[in-house]
Amino acid sequence: MQQNNNKPIILITNDDGIHAPGIHALVEAMRPLGTIVVVAPDKPQSGMGHAITLNEPLRLKKSNLFGDIEAYACTGTPVDCVKLAKDKILHKKPQLCVSGINHGSNSSINIIYSGTMSAAMEAGIEGIPAVGFSLLNYAIDADFTSAAHYAAKIAEQVLQHGLPQNTLLNVNIPYLPIDEINGMRICRQAHAKWEEEYDERLDPHGRPYYWLTGNFVNYDGGDDTDEWALSHGYVSIVPVQYDLTAHQAIAFFHKNWSLYQTKSPHDIHLDNSDTFNDLG
Amino acid sequence: MQQNNNKPIILITNDDGIHAPGIHALVEAMRPLGTIVVVAPDKPQSGMGHAITLNEPLRLKKSNLFGDIEAYACTGTPVDCVKLAKDKILHKKPQLCVSGINHGSNSSINIIYSGTMSAAMEAGIEGIPAVGFSLLNYAIDADFTSAAHYAAKIAEQVLQHGLPQNTLLNVNIPYLPIDEINGMRICRQAHAKWEEEYDERLDPHGRPYYWLTGNFVNYDGGDDTDEWALSHGYVSIVPVQYDLTAHQAIAFFHKNWSLYQTKSPHDIHLDNSDTFNDLG
Repeated sequence: MQQNNNKPIILITNDDGIHAPGIHALVEAMRPLGTIVVVAPDKPQSGMGHAITLNEPLRLKKSNLFGDIEAYACTGTPVDCVKLAKDKILHKKPQLCVSGINHGSNSSINIIYSGTMSAAMEAGIEGIPAVGFSLLNYAIDADFTSAAHYAAKIAEQVLQHGLPQNTLLNVNIPYLPIDEINGMRICRQAHAKWEEEYDERLDPHGRPYYWLTGNFVNYDGGDDTDEWALSHGYVSIVPVQYDLTAHQAIAFFHKNWSLYQTKSPHDIHLDNSDTFNDLG
Repeated sequence: MQQNNNKPIILITNDDGIHAPGIHALVEAMRPLGTIVVVAPDKPQSGMGHAITLNEPLRLKKSNLFGDIEAYACTGTPVDCVKLAKDKILHKKPQLCVSGINHGSNSSINIIYSGTMSAAMEAGIEGIPAVGFSLLNYAIDADFTSAAHYAAKIAEQVLQHGLPQNTLLNVNIPYLPIDEINGMRICRQAHAKWEEEYDERLDPHGRPYYWLTGNFVNYDGGDDTDEWALSHGYVSIVPVQYDLTAHQAIAFFHKNWSLYQTKSPHDIHLDNSDTFNDLG
């Protein structure tokens, strides 16, 4: 791409695909803040998590969906979009990567499954300040006014202050008019999960097939979580890391697996196989 | 499934698919430890990350690939396999879920992209003690003897001691004969990443397409990382969490975004839009 001025370069992607209203709202929100480049999936990629395309080639197709803004539809996943944008379109790090605005929540455990958040995380891994935005409404015709308003405010903050090293942001916005939103809260990811129930059906040949359905269950009573914030009318902002090490758990293994330590506190040997014989 | 005795139930899955030699080595390693149920993808699913299948139905096909062991090929992703196994096959939590043995490393940042590790993480989210195993050799005919040996030892430890709450294990095994492996080390995830370079080619119609290639770069000089352990002949064991909150970063936002606090230290309001006018 050609950068024509000193404005920051802002890479925009999503997982609902380049035709989704949410990414168009995000482009409009970012337009005053920098030089925009859009690289988004050519089709919906919800639930793709951090999938990458290893065994097929990818294609980029220039798009005029955003008028004068440089935009490409990519045949790959949201993470592929970020990787390809950096290597083949931008040729350098943008000052900001924003992903979304997702049609539907990516709060708490949903971050794990979300292509929107995985695209932001991939940018974060590349050292690019990154934010994923999601609106708590799945509808194709949802009103993105409040979400776009907060996306602009948060992007300005990130451009002004930067982000701590190895950190990106997971932002969720309640589906409320602007004047009913109470503000923003810095939160931790709530301890919550999906209770799946697969809907089992029989095809015309009598063979079973399964549709994923489920209920979201919040097990977390804390008032410092994203779920609490969202249910109380706040925009939730969770700082996110991609070091998945459970540092606090390391001591458990040194304590309980200590029989097998030899050379150093980190070393665990299993030379004495007899110890395990009563388990088999 | 029918459980015939008091042995623990062990769910086995992978991302290389039900035909991969790695999962067959894992089944043999686990066979003495419990009642095995295999639910694995019917085709390779490497690089699928935490993808789930939202918009297509899934199918399960009984497999006789493992002799007398109950096994199913699933049309979905590794995460789908774990979800379906729990809801439609096991109907309850197994005592252990093991994933792999992956053909190729899932150390450091590779955990993010790995279907093998995402399957283990999904089990962890469900409250099932879970371990992903990976061998540092991509070859289809790699020798899994050492990896299977350590997989059995580690599974025994997990069955005996359990795992800390909300923690799973990412285990990588160097490609060495058993007597050349120095033991095991509890590690943190190394700070490393892939430097992508897309190989750009032209199709017969002159249109470009891109193949993902790249080099793995370790930026981490620590001797407590998985990369250090593996390069020094140790099996690396990283305790992994799925709370992605960057807890240590929360203070940054309270400090730098404090202009917008009103009601409580958590609250940040943006009512005074004028503050941002010089940024636009």
